[in-house]
Amino acid sequence: MADFSHFNEDGRAKMVDVGGKDTTVRTAVATGRVLVNRECFDLIKSGGMKKGDVLGTAQVAGIMGAKKTSEIIPMCHPIMINGVNITFNYNEEDLAIEIMSEVKCSGVTGVEMEALSAVSIAALTIYDMCKAVQKDMVIDQVHLVSKSGGKSGDFVWKG
Amino acid sequence: MADFSHFNEDGRAKMVDVGGKDTTVRTAVATGRVLVNRECFDLIKSGGMKKGDVLGTAQVAGIMGAKKTSEIIPMCHPIMINGVNITFNYNEEDLAIEIMSEVKCSGVTGVEMEALSAVSIAALTIYDMCKAVQKDMVIDQVHLVSKSGGKSGDFVWKG
Amino acid sequence: MADFSHFNEDGRAKMVDVGGKDTTVRTAVATGRVLVNRECFDLIKSGGMKKGDVLGTAQVAGIMGAKKTSEIIPMCHPIMINGVNITFNYNEEDLAIEIMSEVKCSGVTGVEMEALSAVSIAALTIYDMCKAVQKDMVIDQVHLVSKSGGKSGDFVWKG
Amino acid sequence: MADFSHFNEDGRAKMVDVGGKDTTVRTAVATGRVLVNRECFDLIKSGGMKKGDVLGTAQVAGIMGAKKTSEIIPMCHPIMINGVNITFNYNEEDLAIEIMSEVKCSGVTGVEMEALSAVSIAALTIYDMCKAVQKDMVIDQVHLVSKSGGKSGDFVWKG
Amino acid sequence: MADFSHFNEDGRAKMVDVGGKDTTVRTAVATGRVLVNRECFDLIKSGGMKKGDVLGTAQVAGIMGAKKTSEIIPMCHPIMINGVNITFNYNEEDLAIEIMSEVKCSGVTGVEMEALSAVSIAALTIYDMCKAVQKDMVIDQVHLVSKSGGKSGDFVWKG
Amino acid sequence: MADFSHFNEDGRAKMVDVGGKDTTVRTAVATGRVLVNRECFDLIKSGGMKKGDVLGTAQVAGIMGAKKTSEIIPMCHPIMINGVNITFNYNEEDLAIEIMSEVKCSGVTGVEMEALSAVSIAALTIYDMCKAVQKDMVIDQVHLVSKSGGKSGDFVWKG
Repeated sequence: MADFSHFNEDGRAKMVDVGGKDTTVRTAVATGRVLVNRECFDLIKSGGMKKGDVLGTAQVAGIMGAKKTSEIIPMCHPIMINGVNITFNYNEEDLAIEIMSEVKCSGVTGVEMEALSAVSIAALTIYDMCKAVQKDMVIDQVHLVSKSGGKSGDFVWKG
Repeated sequence: MADFSHFNEDGRAKMVDVGGKDTTVRTAVATGRVLVNRECFDLIKSGGMKKGDVLGTAQVAGIMGAKKTSEIIPMCHPIMINGVNITFNYNEEDLAIEIMSEVKCSGVTGVEMEALSAVSIAALTIYDMCKAVQKDMVIDQVHLVSKSGGKSGDFVWKG
Repeated sequence: MADFSHFNEDGRAKMVDVGGKDTTVRTAVATGRVLVNRECFDLIKSGGMKKGDVLGTAQVAGIMGAKKTSEIIPMCHPIMINGVNITFNYNEEDLAIEIMSEVKCSGVTGVEMEALSAVSIAALTIYDMCKAVQKDMVIDQVHLVSKSGGKSGDFVWKG
Repeated sequence: MADFSHFNEDGRAKMVDVGGKDTTVRTAVATGRVLVNRECFDLIKSGGMKKGDVLGTAQVAGIMGAKKTSEIIPMCHPIMINGVNITFNYNEEDLAIEIMSEVKCSGVTGVEMEALSAVSIAALTIYDMCKAVQKDMVIDQVHLVSKSGGKSGDFVWKG
Repeated sequence: MADFSHFNEDGRAKMVDVGGKDTTVRTAVATGRVLVNRECFDLIKSGGMKKGDVLGTAQVAGIMGAKKTSEIIPMCHPIMINGVNITFNYNEEDLAIEIMSEVKCSGVTGVEMEALSAVSIAALTIYDMCKAVQKDMVIDQVHLVSKSGGKSGDFVWKG
Repeated sequence: MADFSHFNEDGRAKMVDVGGKDTTVRTAVATGRVLVNRECFDLIKSGGMKKGDVLGTAQVAGIMGAKKTSEIIPMCHPIMINGVNITFNYNEEDLAIEIMSEVKCSGVTGVEMEALSAVSIAALTIYDMCKAVQKDMVIDQVHLVSKSGGKSGDFVWKG
């Protein structure tokens, strides 16, 4: 059964006290993708989308977005991120731009939200850069791939 | 064929000049959802999730996120948003929390990105609030539902 | 009786749509004060407080704080502020540093929150600059003094 | 006599070097209140104020505001907050919404300013959510209640 | 003789009231450069600098920096930027990366500071991306090239 | 020869993983200057520039700018700054306002960028405060003066 102890006494949200947790190396990997049409896919791949180099801009946005996580997600703790990497894959079969982020820190709380924010903001940036060409793109399959470090143990996505 | 004229002369990204566009009322509606397991679904619905009232917090985060769009998406123009609303729906069949955002402005550029950011940040907040209970949640079907106003005309999602 | 129409259909907060409101010149004046002890009062007045020129720093903080209002108050609309001024008064009798802010815009929504934020953040900055000398300072009497412009009419504080 | 050593050589503000201070668990509790009229008080209590659930939104705003402290108060050090909680009390006698915040960190500098910012921003949010009903609300009695940890020792408000 | 009228009554900074100024199209062009050594110059030009594509990242940073101007320069007014472009030139003779920014808006106040911020932040980003290779780079010749629009008339740099 | 290992596998920018680096005391000193004309120089020196106390405002802006470094420079790591100081010097001969910043932290990555950001933002603020009097000011000689701490060793500017 889930632990309800983190409500405050009034049943309202609070930022959980992580003061007693150990400082360990923590890693999280997240993924997501943007479904596009053939024209859009080819334009991104050839580096010829309106507003310029789509994936290069999405990558900078995703990395900066990881750093903004505690500012945009209300109950997230500020974290000293040690490193962020983002990679892209062209999935020809599904006409999808696949995004993979990896975030590391040495701290008392995990970096799952940072990895998921990096993916989401990179995906939104791809949408923005391409929306003059296609408006019915879809962002989907945004989820955690793995995490390590911390009391709650490692996690690996099982699909 | 798509318009490539918005590259700068070096093939690099630029923020497109919208100075010549008309000031009109512009609206955008976007949607997305968070797929959860039964335990998580029931906890959210009963208002008993760790970190407190999940959807109330996600709603505030989504509205504040809409206001942050031009700060997190590199080529987005700053916009004076006139109003934002976010609603949620419990999809019992798919065990999904469905999110719908509506953003309005009177300006020279559309609010699609603001609506999509609101949905994405609300979804990330739901993930954050529930991740102590479930780690394999999935954010999917994030897309524009409709937009109106502006030169490029109205858009309605056709699925 | 108060108007409840601005709830959304689920009884949740939304950013009210101000799209139909007129663009007019709007002004708001707010005030507040910081109650200090004699030592602290004299140090501020002589410009000799730890961390440097207390009121000069508080003034810059208050002006920058006015610009941050829509970022820190969840349902506030972004506003193109036309001007901000902050003045201070030494109230010898009450040992109080009185703060007065005036904010102007030409827009569709008022600047009360910007004026109140400017005062509050200036007051917090005074606290911060003086807390090595005194820890039991009190911020009080923060309120709107007057507003003009907009449909809801002018307001003047009657005490 | 107060310590003036933290001025720089030109008598200008500087961010004091805390590099030599010990990393300890630090806690700060702050309070403040919003004085409202009877109609406003009853509307907040019944959860029926314009713009939605007043205290739920104020709580999210206050927690996010605590995280923004070093961004809005010029000489504040960035801090890795471990936890934030905010509670409200309805003071029927004074028609006041009382706000109490508690902030914790493990660090080299205290969290008084974070606790005071949380209270002030929660109070401003209450004002914003209620200003369509009442414009002459007053924020008062904002002060530190207690602090612990760090070289300067514990503090308890004596009124 | 210069106009001193924009001091407030206490000789303190204020954000000047631009409410009476006309809304016109305003443009500003600014420039600056980063002086590097031969090794660094060649690495940037070949796209092989540590941390990746130096100028692509600097360009995104500069554009986002232009949007942050009113947040980092205390007395700057928030501005709805219409467009930003940044270009780079390799000055082989001086071993300099030259940066040129152009910013446009339709508003009541000029965009000189936005153009200068874009250049400065792009220059700082180049420094950051290259500092593992060279630490004694110099940013110099940061200045306004031209401005148009507004009461104070056009400006063209005369060197 | 320079180390290229910090590219990711696709030749795109990443935030380098600093997880294995030692936590040490790190210091950086940076400088820069603003070249002004005689009228402007005298006005700044006499404290009589439009928009108020030029250097006092520039100093607050520079300190706040140091704290914003990881937000404006895309690949910069967030850092818990321990202290920041900024000093100014009137160079009568060159009609230059010289800016010197010193930043300290205890961390795994250096504070060069924080020191350079502090100088650049202070310089931009001086420009902003004086631009009603002179538009052809120049920011130049922005560079690192010294750094200490960390694996890459100390650095002293040799001109």
